[in-house]
Amino acid sequence: MSGNSQIEEELELSPKFDANGLITAIAQDAKTGQILMVAYMNKESLELTIRTSRATYYSRSRKKLWKKGEESGHFQKVEQILVDCDQDCIVLKVSVDAGQCHTGHQSCFYRAVENGKLKFIAKKVYDPKEVYKK
Amino acid sequence: MSGNSQIEEELELSPKFDANGLITAIAQDAKTGQILMVAYMNKESLELTIRTSRATYYSRSRKKLWKKGEESGHFQKVEQILVDCDQDCIVLKVSVDAGQCHTGHQSCFYRAVENGKLKFIAKKVYDPKEVYKK
Repeated sequence: MSGNSQIEEELELSPKFDANGLITAIAQDAKTGQILMVAYMNKESLELTIRTSRATYYSRSRKKLWKKGEESGHFQKVEQILVDCDQDCIVLKVSVDAGQCHTGHQSCFYRAVENGKLKFIAKKVYDPKEVYKK
Repeated sequence: MSGNSQIEEELELSPKFDANGLITAIAQDAKTGQILMVAYMNKESLELTIRTSRATYYSRSRKKLWKKGEESGHFQKVEQILVDCDQDCIVLKVSVDAGQCHTGHQSCFYRAVENGKLKFIAKKVYDPKEVYKK
């Protein structure tokens, strides 16, 4: 296996955005280690995230910047930002309150694969109907 | 924020592969919670991973199935597979030995952003030159 050793060893932040100008960002609870959600960032949202220490993503469906929590109130305070070896993926270690998934669960990963089916492994921590009012 | 409530609540495993037939897969240390790496799976590699409980990805650069550890010996034993709300991302909780990144680090996320630059936050746990011999 060969890698691009320059990008793997360098101390310059040079995120590798994909053909759509996006990079994958994983939000991980800084305290518990739980993976909360996976979303995407463009250059502007990454810069905003670094500058404000509040996670800001780029919504592919709404085609605009999306400051996490702007609608739900469930903001993510960024404690640390990690990049991977080839700088095409980011981990945000975040401090959060309850309920990071718009479905009402703490994490978007509330189902596990078991015997070819899915099984709920978490209960909702808030009622999304109460939060996302039209 | 609206979601696709059927896919969010269903118990069918119906992974949403992207235009290239791939889905993002995050390997997380089942014991420590550390995020080890992010890679991609096609349908075949996901099925193989489920069936064998050894993480198998699809290498975009090499354009072929990639059983993690086939070259390095650093396999990933899959303890649990989680899917997110819209089933376009997977978390593998894995048991691993030392050194999951081909650079020699335990995790691919061995650098943090600090004051606009990167800072190493981990040391290598093995010498990749010893492992990846031509």
